[in-house]
Amino acid sequence: MDIKKVEHIGIAVKDLQESRKFYEQVLGLKCYREETVPDQKVRTAFYKAGNVKIELLEATDQESPVAKFIEKKGEGLHHIAFETEDLAKNLKQINNQIRLIDKKPRPGAEGLQIAFVHPASAHGVLVELCEHPHHGK
Amino acid sequence: MDIKKVEHIGIAVKDLQESRKFYEQVLGLKCYREETVPDQKVRTAFYKAGNVKIELLEATDQESPVAKFIEKKGEGLHHIAFETEDLAKNLKQINNQIRLIDKKPRPGAEGLQIAFVHPASAHGVLVELCEHPHHGK
Repeated sequence: MDIKKVEHIGIAVKDLQESRKFYEQVLGLKCYREETVPDQKVRTAFYKAGNVKIELLEATDQESPVAKFIEKKGEGLHHIAFETEDLAKNLKQINNQIRLIDKKPRPGAEGLQIAFVHPASAHGVLVELCEHPHHGK
Repeated sequence: MDIKKVEHIGIAVKDLQESRKFYEQVLGLKCYREETVPDQKVRTAFYKAGNVKIELLEATDQESPVAKFIEKKGEGLHHIAFETEDLAKNLKQINNQIRLIDKKPRPGAEGLQIAFVHPASAHGVLVELCEHPHHGK
């Protein structure tokens, strides 16, 4: 696989407005976008920390994967998203090597196509692979 | 505080050699450095994923903070390190706002000066603040 960069880092929070205070008032980062992603049942706030985006994730439903994550592990670092050029092709290529949550790309925040690797195949890390829509196959 | 960028993302692993297979054989990243950091009782392997460094951390001692993290939460995303220009000054500035693990900079991997924010002040995220030795005072 050809990883271009870390697209963003996802952080699971219980209360988006409360958590924003740390990133804005302590670290001095500026939120540039808020978005609700129905497919993942989350409300998000995005920051650009120089080279990388930080995505705060609050569950909008108790069935949200983020709600389940917090229940199991508590608030904290949730996932790391790597950008690739051709997500569908990469998923096919690694499908025999590792366990995938998504075998095909699906829509994520900011218009990205995304897919998750199962943490069991990545030593406990929830790895997202993603592709920007303007990149192509 | 003035955050320049995300310097690296730290990932706690039980077995460094075993975990490297995922980052190298599945994601196709190349390890550019291995280092043991006695102060933190860890053995590390570094990757450059485009814009950001990934630091795999294996405990060298059961008293290592990484061993304790894995015992409590399992393997996975461990910390996020933000680079600042003047770490000592920033620590003084935020010491009244939040709880710090390190009130003064101490030596980290790759010659960095580092300090950790207590996860209780960052909604469960272990935040490292760091300064490159050629920056600052």
